[in-house]
Amino acid sequence: MAPEVRAMAHGDKAAVMGILRHTSEFKQMEVDVAEELIDAYLEEGMASDYYTYVSLVDSSILGYICYGPTPITEGTYDVYWMAVSLQAQRHGVGRALLSAAEADVRARHGRILLIETSGKASYFKAQSFYASMGYDLVSRIPEFYEPGDDKLTYYKRIG
Amino acid sequence: MAPEVRAMAHGDKAAVMGILRHTSEFKQMEVDVAEELIDAYLEEGMASDYYTYVSLVDSSILGYICYGPTPITEGTYDVYWMAVSLQAQRHGVGRALLSAAEADVRARHGRILLIETSGKASYFKAQSFYASMGYDLVSRIPEFYEPGDDKLTYYKRIG
Repeated sequence: MAPEVRAMAHGDKAAVMGILRHTSEFKQMEVDVAEELIDAYLEEGMASDYYTYVSLVDSSILGYICYGPTPITEGTYDVYWMAVSLQAQRHGVGRALLSAAEADVRARHGRILLIETSGKASYFKAQSFYASMGYDLVSRIPEFYEPGDDKLTYYKRIG
Repeated sequence: MAPEVRAMAHGDKAAVMGILRHTSEFKQMEVDVAEELIDAYLEEGMASDYYTYVSLVDSSILGYICYGPTPITEGTYDVYWMAVSLQAQRHGVGRALLSAAEADVRARHGRILLIETSGKASYFKAQSFYASMGYDLVSRIPEFYEPGDDKLTYYKRIG
Protein backbone atom coordinates (compact mmCIF):
# COMPACT_ATOMS: atom_id res chain seq x y z
CA MET A 1 0.00 0.00 0.00
CA ALA A 2 1.43 3.40 -0.98
CA PRO A 3 2.35 5.65 1.95
CA GLU A 4 0.07 8.63 2.60
CA VAL A 5 1.76 11.94 3.41
CA ARG A 6 0.03 14.78 5.28
CA ALA A 7 0.85 17.73 7.55
CA MET A 8 1.73 16.72 11.11
CA ALA A 9 -0.97 17.21 13.78
CA HIS A 10 -0.73 17.38 17.58
CA GLY A 11 -1.99 13.81 17.92
CA ASP A 12 0.95 12.50 15.86
CA LYS A 13 3.66 13.67 18.24
CA ALA A 14 3.95 10.57 20.44
CA ALA A 15 4.37 8.31 17.40
CA VAL A 16 6.98 10.59 15.81
CA MET A 17 8.95 10.87 19.06
CA GLY A 18 8.87 7.08 19.32
CA ILE A 19 10.43 6.76 15.86
CA LEU A 20 13.10 9.36 16.72
CA ARG A 21 13.98 7.60 19.99
CA HIS A 22 14.27 4.25 18.24
CA THR A 23 16.60 5.58 15.53
CA SER A 24 19.91 4.32 16.85
CA GLU A 25 22.00 6.88 14.92
CA PHE A 26 20.47 9.84 16.80
CA LYS A 27 22.04 11.11 20.01
CA GLN A 28 19.78 12.40 22.78
CA MET A 29 20.84 15.98 22.03
CA GLU A 30 19.71 15.50 18.42
CA VAL A 31 16.34 14.07 19.45
CA ASP A 32 15.91 17.10 21.74
CA VAL A 33 16.55 19.53 18.87
CA ALA A 34 14.20 17.56 16.60
CA GLU A 35 11.51 17.86 19.28
CA GLU A 36 12.03 21.64 19.56
CA LEU A 37 11.39 22.02 15.81
CA ILE A 38 8.29 19.78 16.01
CA ASP A 39 6.93 21.85 18.89
CA ALA A 40 7.59 25.08 16.96
CA TYR A 41 5.61 23.69 14.02
CA LEU A 42 2.76 22.40 16.17
CA GLU A 43 2.47 25.80 17.89
CA GLU A 44 2.98 28.18 14.99
CA GLY A 45 2.33 26.10 11.85
CA MET A 46 3.93 27.41 8.66
CA ALA A 47 4.81 30.66 10.46
CA SER A 48 7.45 28.63 12.33
CA ASP A 49 9.47 28.11 9.11
CA TYR A 50 9.73 24.42 10.12
CA TYR A 51 7.26 22.60 7.90
CA THR A 52 6.52 19.09 9.09
CA TYR A 53 4.89 16.15 7.32
CA VAL A 54 4.18 12.63 8.52
CA SER A 55 3.84 9.49 6.44
CA LEU A 56 1.25 6.81 7.21
CA VAL A 57 0.57 3.28 6.01
CA ASP A 58 -2.72 1.73 7.18
CA SER A 59 -3.22 4.71 9.54
CA SER A 60 0.10 4.06 11.32
CA ILE A 61 2.72 6.80 11.38
CA LEU A 62 5.92 5.37 9.94
CA GLY A 63 8.04 8.46 9.39
CA TYR A 64 8.29 12.23 9.33
CA ILE A 65 10.18 15.04 7.65
CA CYS A 66 10.89 18.60 8.80
CA TYR A 67 12.15 21.20 6.32
CA GLY A 68 11.93 24.93 5.67
CA PRO A 69 13.43 28.03 4.11
CA THR A 70 17.10 28.62 4.94
CA PRO A 71 17.57 32.01 6.66
CA ILE A 72 19.21 34.82 4.67
CA THR A 73 18.85 32.95 1.37
CA GLU A 74 16.46 33.46 -1.52
CA GLY A 75 14.97 30.15 -2.58
CA THR A 76 17.18 27.73 -0.63
CA TYR A 77 15.49 25.21 1.68
CA ASP A 78 16.91 22.78 4.23
CA VAL A 79 15.70 19.36 5.28
CA TYR A 80 16.30 19.78 9.01
CA TRP A 81 15.20 16.34 10.12
CA MET A 82 13.87 13.10 8.72
CA ALA A 83 13.22 9.70 10.31
CA VAL A 84 11.55 6.51 9.18
CA SER A 85 10.65 3.64 11.51
CA LEU A 86 12.97 0.67 11.18
CA GLN A 87 10.14 -1.68 10.13
CA ALA A 88 9.10 0.68 7.32
CA GLN A 89 12.51 1.12 5.73
CA ARG A 90 12.75 -0.03 2.10
CA HIS A 91 8.95 0.40 1.74
CA GLY A 92 8.98 3.80 0.11
CA VAL A 93 8.16 5.87 3.19
CA GLY A 94 11.33 7.96 2.99
CA ARG A 95 10.87 8.44 -0.74
CA ALA A 96 7.24 9.54 -0.25
CA LEU A 97 8.24 12.06 2.46
CA LEU A 98 11.16 13.59 0.58
CA SER A 99 9.18 13.75 -2.68
CA ALA A 100 6.37 15.58 -0.88
CA ALA A 101 8.84 18.09 0.57
CA GLU A 102 10.39 18.62 -2.88
CA ALA A 103 6.96 19.21 -4.45
CA ASP A 104 6.14 21.77 -1.77
CA VAL A 105 9.49 23.57 -2.18
CA ARG A 106 8.90 23.64 -5.96
CA ALA A 107 5.42 25.11 -5.41
CA ARG A 108 7.01 27.84 -3.24
CA HIS A 109 9.44 28.62 -6.09
CA GLY A 110 12.36 27.23 -4.12
CA ARG A 111 15.53 26.71 -6.14
CA ILE A 112 17.60 24.35 -4.00
CA LEU A 113 16.99 21.72 -1.34
CA LEU A 114 19.85 20.82 1.01
CA ILE A 115 20.24 17.93 3.43
CA GLU A 116 23.05 17.77 5.96
CA THR A 117 24.04 14.45 7.44
CA SER A 118 26.88 12.66 9.14
CA GLY A 119 29.74 11.16 7.15
CA LYS A 120 29.97 8.20 9.55
CA ALA A 121 29.63 4.67 8.21
CA SER A 122 26.55 4.17 10.39
CA TYR A 123 24.81 6.80 8.20
CA PHE A 124 25.44 4.85 5.01
CA LYS A 125 21.74 4.08 4.51
CA ALA A 126 20.86 7.78 4.67
CA GLN A 127 23.76 8.74 2.38
CA SER A 128 22.70 6.13 -0.24
CA PHE A 129 19.08 7.18 0.02
CA TYR A 130 19.85 10.85 -0.71
CA ALA A 131 22.05 9.87 -3.66
CA SER A 132 19.26 7.61 -4.99
CA MET A 133 16.87 10.58 -4.79
CA GLY A 134 19.13 12.64 -7.06
CA TYR A 135 21.08 14.61 -4.45
CA ASP A 136 24.75 15.45 -5.07
CA LEU A 137 27.29 15.40 -2.27
CA VAL A 138 28.70 18.95 -2.57
CA SER A 139 30.46 19.52 0.75
CA ARG A 140 32.26 17.71 3.56
CA ILE A 141 33.30 19.62 6.71
CA PRO A 142 35.92 17.50 8.52
CA GLU A 143 35.13 16.49 12.11
CA PHE A 144 32.25 18.96 12.29
CA TYR A 145 29.96 17.08 14.70
CA GLU A 146 32.77 15.63 16.83
CA PRO A 147 36.20 14.09 16.26
CA GLY A 148 35.84 11.52 13.47
CA ASP A 149 32.36 12.73 12.45
CA ASP A 150 32.28 14.87 9.29
CA LYS A 151 29.28 16.86 8.09
CA LEU A 152 28.14 16.06 4.54
CA THR A 153 25.84 18.32 2.54
CA TYR A 154 23.60 16.81 -0.15
CA TYR A 155 22.24 19.18 -2.79
CA LYS A 156 19.44 19.09 -5.35
CA ARG A 157 18.20 21.75 -7.73
CA ILE A 158 14.41 21.96 -7.51
CA GLY A 159 12.01 23.15 -10.19
CA MET B 1 47.62 52.31 18.50
CA ALA B 2 46.69 48.66 18.98
CA PRO B 3 42.96 47.95 18.95
CA GLU B 4 41.38 47.11 22.30
CA VAL B 5 38.87 44.23 22.33
CA ARG B 6 36.16 43.83 24.99
CA ALA B 7 32.69 42.33 25.45
CA MET B 8 29.94 44.37 23.83
CA ALA B 9 27.78 46.52 26.15
CA HIS B 10 24.36 48.11 25.62
CA GLY B 11 25.90 51.53 24.99
CA ASP B 12 27.86 50.14 22.02
CA LYS B 13 24.84 49.15 19.97
CA ALA B 14 24.33 52.37 18.00
CA ALA B 15 27.97 52.41 16.86
CA VAL B 16 27.90 48.74 15.84
CA MET B 17 24.63 49.16 13.92
CA GLY B 18 26.16 52.14 12.14
CA ILE B 19 29.10 50.01 11.01
CA LEU B 20 26.74 47.24 9.82
CA ARG B 21 24.57 49.69 7.88
CA HIS B 22 27.61 51.22 6.20
CA THR B 23 29.01 47.86 5.10
CA SER B 24 27.94 47.88 1.46
CA GLU B 25 28.13 44.08 1.07
CA PHE B 26 25.34 43.47 3.63
CA LYS B 27 21.72 43.34 2.51
CA GLN B 28 19.03 44.77 4.81
CA MET B 29 17.87 41.21 5.69
CA GLU B 30 21.42 40.39 6.82
CA VAL B 31 21.69 43.52 8.96
CA ASP B 32 18.35 42.55 10.55
CA VAL B 33 19.63 39.07 11.45
CA ALA B 34 22.88 40.57 12.80
CA GLU B 35 20.81 42.88 15.00
CA GLU B 36 18.74 39.95 16.34
CA LEU B 37 21.92 38.18 17.46
CA ILE B 38 23.25 41.37 19.06
CA ASP B 39 19.98 41.84 20.96
CA ALA B 40 20.06 38.21 22.12
CA TYR B 41 23.57 38.77 23.49
CA LEU B 42 22.73 42.08 25.14
CA GLU B 43 19.69 40.50 26.83
CA GLU B 44 21.04 37.11 27.83
CA GLY B 45 24.84 37.45 27.70
CA MET B 46 26.77 34.21 27.31
CA ALA B 47 23.55 32.24 27.88
CA SER B 48 22.45 33.41 24.42
CA ASP B 49 25.21 31.34 22.75
CA TYR B 50 26.00 34.44 20.64
CA TYR B 51 29.16 35.88 22.14
CA THR B 52 29.86 39.41 20.99
CA TYR B 53 33.02 41.52 21.20
CA VAL B 54 33.72 45.03 20.01
CA SER B 55 37.04 46.55 19.02
CA LEU B 56 38.01 50.10 19.91
CA VAL B 57 40.79 52.48 18.96
CA ASP B 58 41.01 55.73 20.95
CA SER B 59 37.64 54.88 22.58
CA SER B 60 35.89 54.66 19.17
CA ILE B 61 34.16 51.43 18.19
CA LEU B 62 35.60 50.34 14.86
CA GLY B 63 34.31 46.77 14.55
CA TYR B 64 32.58 43.81 16.14
CA ILE B 65 32.44 40.03 16.01
CA CYS B 66 29.68 37.61 16.98
CA TYR B 67 30.45 33.90 17.39
CA GLY B 68 29.31 30.92 19.42
CA PRO B 69 29.00 27.15 19.77
CA THR B 70 27.45 25.41 16.76
CA PRO B 71 24.31 23.48 17.79
CA ILE B 72 24.50 19.65 17.92
CA THR B 73 28.28 19.65 17.69
CA GLU B 74 30.93 19.01 20.29
CA GLY B 75 33.62 21.67 20.14
CA THR B 76 32.71 23.38 16.85
CA TYR B 77 32.13 27.13 16.87
CA ASP B 78 30.82 29.50 14.21
CA VAL B 79 31.67 33.12 13.52
CA TYR B 80 28.13 34.32 12.80
CA TRP B 81 28.95 37.91 11.98
CA MET B 82 31.84 40.29 11.76
CA ALA B 83 32.15 43.86 10.53
CA VAL B 84 34.87 46.50 10.59
CA SER B 85 34.32 50.15 9.75
CA LEU B 86 35.65 51.11 6.33
CA GLN B 87 38.06 53.70 7.79
CA ALA B 88 39.57 51.08 10.12
CA GLN B 89 40.24 48.39 7.53
CA ARG B 90 43.91 47.39 7.15
CA HIS B 91 44.59 48.69 10.68
CA GLY B 92 44.43 45.36 12.47
CA VAL B 93 40.90 45.68 13.86
CA GLY B 94 39.62 42.54 12.13
CA ARG B 95 42.72 40.62 13.14
CA ALA B 96 42.33 41.72 16.78
CA LEU B 97 38.65 40.68 16.84
CA LEU B 98 39.14 37.29 15.21
CA SER B 99 42.22 36.54 17.34
CA ALA B 100 40.21 37.34 20.49
CA ALA B 101 37.39 35.01 19.38
CA GLU B 102 39.93 32.25 18.66
CA ALA B 103 41.55 32.65 22.08
CA ASP B 104 38.14 32.40 23.74
CA VAL B 105 37.15 29.31 21.71
CA ARG B 106 40.50 27.73 22.67
CA ALA B 107 39.87 28.51 26.35
CA ARG B 108 36.49 26.76 26.03
CA HIS B 109 38.21 23.69 24.59
CA GLY B 110 36.70 24.31 21.17
CA ARG B 111 38.25 22.27 18.35
CA ILE B 112 37.17 24.08 15.21
CA LEU B 113 36.16 27.60 14.20
CA LEU B 114 34.10 28.06 11.02
CA ILE B 115 33.28 31.19 9.06
CA GLU B 116 30.72 31.19 6.27
CA THR B 117 30.82 33.92 3.67
CA SER B 118 29.74 34.75 0.15
CA GLY B 119 31.74 33.58 -2.85
CA LYS B 120 31.00 36.83 -4.72
CA ALA B 121 33.87 38.97 -5.97
CA SER B 122 32.65 41.81 -3.73
CA TYR B 123 33.60 39.63 -0.73
CA PHE B 124 37.19 39.25 -1.90
CA LYS B 125 38.54 41.33 1.02
CA ALA B 126 36.80 39.04 3.54
CA GLN B 127 37.93 35.89 1.73
CA SER B 128 41.57 37.07 1.66
CA PHE B 129 41.41 38.10 5.29
CA TYR B 130 40.23 34.66 6.46
CA ALA B 131 42.93 32.97 4.36
CA SER B 132 45.55 35.31 5.87
CA MET B 133 44.35 34.30 9.35
CA GLY B 134 45.04 30.63 8.60
CA TYR B 135 41.55 29.51 7.56
CA ASP B 136 41.15 26.88 4.83
CA LEU B 137 38.35 27.07 2.29
CA VAL B 138 36.76 23.63 2.80
CA SER B 139 33.34 23.96 1.19
CA ARG B 140 31.46 25.81 -1.55
CA ILE B 141 27.68 25.41 -1.87
CA PRO B 142 26.69 26.63 -5.35
CA GLU B 143 24.13 29.48 -5.54
CA PHE B 144 23.26 29.07 -1.86
CA TYR B 145 22.38 32.68 -1.01
CA GLU B 146 20.79 33.48 -4.36
CA PRO B 147 21.49 32.75 -8.04
CA GLY B 148 25.16 33.48 -8.66
CA ASP B 149 26.02 33.73 -4.95
CA ASP B 150 27.78 30.66 -3.53
CA LYS B 151 28.35 30.00 0.18
CA LEU B 152 31.97 29.43 1.17
CA THR B 153 33.02 27.86 4.46
CA TYR B 154 36.40 28.75 5.97
CA TYR B 155 37.80 26.37 8.56
CA LYS B 156 40.50 26.52 11.24
CA ARG B 157 41.53 23.98 13.84
CA ILE B 158 41.82 25.69 17.21
CA GLY B 159 43.99 24.65 20.14
